[in-house]
Amino acid sequence: MALSTDRFLADLDALRRIGTYKSGVHRPTFGPEDMESRHWLVAAMQAAGLEASIDGIGNVFGRHPGPGPHLLAGSHIETQNQAGWLDGVLGVVGALELARAGLPVDVCAYADEEAHWGDFIGSRSLIGELSEEDIDAARNRYTGAALRPTLEAVGLAGRPRLLLDPARYKGALEMHIEQGTQLENAALRIGVVTGIVGIRQFRIVITGQQDHTGGTTMRERRDAGLTAVRLLGLLDREMPRAAAERSVWTTGRIALEPNAPMIIPGRAEIVFSFRDLSEAVMDRMEACLRAVVQESNRQERCPAVLEEISRSAPALSDPAIVGAFQGAAEALCPGAWQAMPSGAIHDSQILARKLPVGMLFVPSIGGISHHWTEDTRREDLALGMEVLHGAAQRFLAA
Amino acid sequence: MALSTDRFLADLDALRRIGTYKSGVHRPTFGPEDMESRHWLVAAMQAAGLEASIDGIGNVFGRHPGPGPHLLAGSHIETQNQAGWLDGVLGVVGALELARAGLPVDVCAYADEEAHWGDFIGSRSLIGELSEEDIDAARNRYTGAALRPTLEAVGLAGRPRLLLDPARYKGALEMHIEQGTQLENAALRIGVVTGIVGIRQFRIVITGQQDHTGGTTMRERRDAGLTAVRLLGLLDREMPRAAAERSVWTTGRIALEPNAPMIIPGRAEIVFSFRDLSEAVMDRMEACLRAVVQESNRQERCPAVLEEISRSAPALSDPAIVGAFQGAAEALCPGAWQAMPSGAIHDSQILARKLPVGMLFVPSIGGISHHWTEDTRREDLALGMEVLHGAAQRFLAA
Repeated sequence: MALSTDRFLADLDALRRIGTYKSGVHRPTFGPEDMESRHWLVAAMQAAGLEASIDGIGNVFGRHPGPGPHLLAGSHIETQNQAGWLDGVLGVVGALELARAGLPVDVCAYADEEAHWGDFIGSRSLIGELSEEDIDAARNRYTGAALRPTLEAVGLAGRPRLLLDPARYKGALEMHIEQGTQLENAALRIGVVTGIVGIRQFRIVITGQQDHTGGTTMRERRDAGLTAVRLLGLLDREMPRAAAERSVWTTGRIALEPNAPMIIPGRAEIVFSFRDLSEAVMDRMEACLRAVVQESNRQERCPAVLEEISRSAPALSDPAIVGAFQGAAEALCPGAWQAMPSGAIHDSQILARKLPVGMLFVPSIGGISHHWTEDTRREDLALGMEVLHGAAQRFLAA
Repeated sequence: MALSTDRFLADLDALRRIGTYKSGVHRPTFGPEDMESRHWLVAAMQAAGLEASIDGIGNVFGRHPGPGPHLLAGSHIETQNQAGWLDGVLGVVGALELARAGLPVDVCAYADEEAHWGDFIGSRSLIGELSEEDIDAARNRYTGAALRPTLEAVGLAGRPRLLLDPARYKGALEMHIEQGTQLENAALRIGVVTGIVGIRQFRIVITGQQDHTGGTTMRERRDAGLTAVRLLGLLDREMPRAAAERSVWTTGRIALEPNAPMIIPGRAEIVFSFRDLSEAVMDRMEACLRAVVQESNRQERCPAVLEEISRSAPALSDPAIVGAFQGAAEALCPGAWQAMPSGAIHDSQILARKLPVGMLFVPSIGGISHHWTEDTRREDLALGMEVLHGAAQRFLAA
């Protein structure tokens, strides 16, 4: 019943051989390789003494048969297309190793965190926030195929969907690759996640007048692209005043119409988003954005309309779990860890609606993720496993 | 042998019935409707007593059989796709009417000003600046079809290409729609073109680092889109200091990669162009652009590389022709005309390399061109014809 990082690494290697793509893997949710990996996981859970099943939405759940207090641990097992071998899998196999090491841990691979079919359908189903209508409406983002017949085709139709019993758990843990370069750049080996940032995403549509560049004087023009540049320049100057130290904000998309060299743009569409751990900071950032759009409309000939695309709330880690991770990290790699927010989204932010949660990051080489070249050094993987195990022990004992 | 604006308008109407598209026409160069209009024009030239032919590049040329000094007059007869009934045709039919009114005018419809197959292939051929290799290399910009076999298919293979004899002409005249709103906005009926602007077009490529928006701190980012916004903001602030009163400058194209809402742009491509009648002003504007790119490279993490795409020289109108147009305009519509540059390109700028040139604009309703809704009031068309005729008489007599 001792922890074995060798066994943990061997299981990661075993899953790397299902749906191998170059040095990564290709296991989109409910494809044949993905289903093979889910059945592999059921067998591994059973071998570890867990009561294992795949539920009606594809969650692979291994229930610990012994007495509590229990922990829930896991992540996801499917991958982005032609992606890395560790993204998600690391947290599932790490959770499995906790159970094998004798801890009272239920293990779960939450279905489709990678959003081939929707938005956290596995973890939302588990906490009771995915309706049958949601399933009827879900389509594959790449192929447009419907989810409902796909669940039937892979043998999951008619199975019950598991529902989380929050009273059973002291908390939920997730180990994951960082998907960034903060640890690598700081030469650190462990990140203790203080929370998962909230995201607010907005569209700004600017309407001008499409015209020939030759025949239209500067005074006559209503150049939607120029208004976009001025608005974004103002946002670039103002946002640092509203943001906090770890806030990020991004203009990912600028689309001019017709975007032709010799035509004055008649329309510009901007997608702007920002992230922070604090709702109060995000409120300040949103107020800044709204003020910038208002100022643009006061100064410019081309009106700008702001609309919200989406918003998600930040999910703070449980202080006791953070303390357990910090204690274990300092014991196992003193000085080589840091507390940090997760800028990326994870199932833990869904689980946080029902349970205390906490996450652990290991470094990503070059920060690469969602690509088959994603990788992490084996000694960092093993250290991550040890810290996860130490933290689980500390938290259970607290 | 008197001028007849009714006959002139009737011929415009006749050509509108060849390749009709809604209230406009669709006659792309060397398509069946275009060839029908060229043969129509040959017949009309012959009826006017001109020696008419279509040459090996598609120029329709009507040579006046009488003694000189001669004028050359014309424009183009093909259209943009699904475009207007007057763009080009106005100047060809106007030139034909000059000949019918008894003036010593050679009439030419220069082939493919609308650039379906290249860059002024008709007028360049006429002045001896289009090689056989140019023809071999020319492809249709929409279909990719080769020009050489197309010339054969429409019956032009093997025909000689006409070569301009500059000594034959006192100058060249072109009447055209404005393709802008300057006349309309000023409630004027005639524009006397002082010259055709030069154009310089540049590409700016900015290289950053594509990253996830969540995992990359603001300090770590190399956001090519943000550098583009800052560079264009600086250009927006600096260019008015370099430009002259009638200069125009335009960012028509901004292309981010991958242009996805949640990914930091790794690359940005900008196409920037400017126009002016003065080479000295354009030199100042180019120096401003180069200084802005240099300053961006001094301030920003993402390098910007500037490259020239194309440049064309301005073509100034001949002062004696401008004087003739001004005199005729003031006589026929006192106070209702202005001198103005042409921001759009025309065959006259090619002819200007060999001959004194001058152009006349009539208003475009709403400034619309290259669209089937393009139109001009019939009284403005008739007035344009009268001013063209009056100016041709004055210039010949000068």
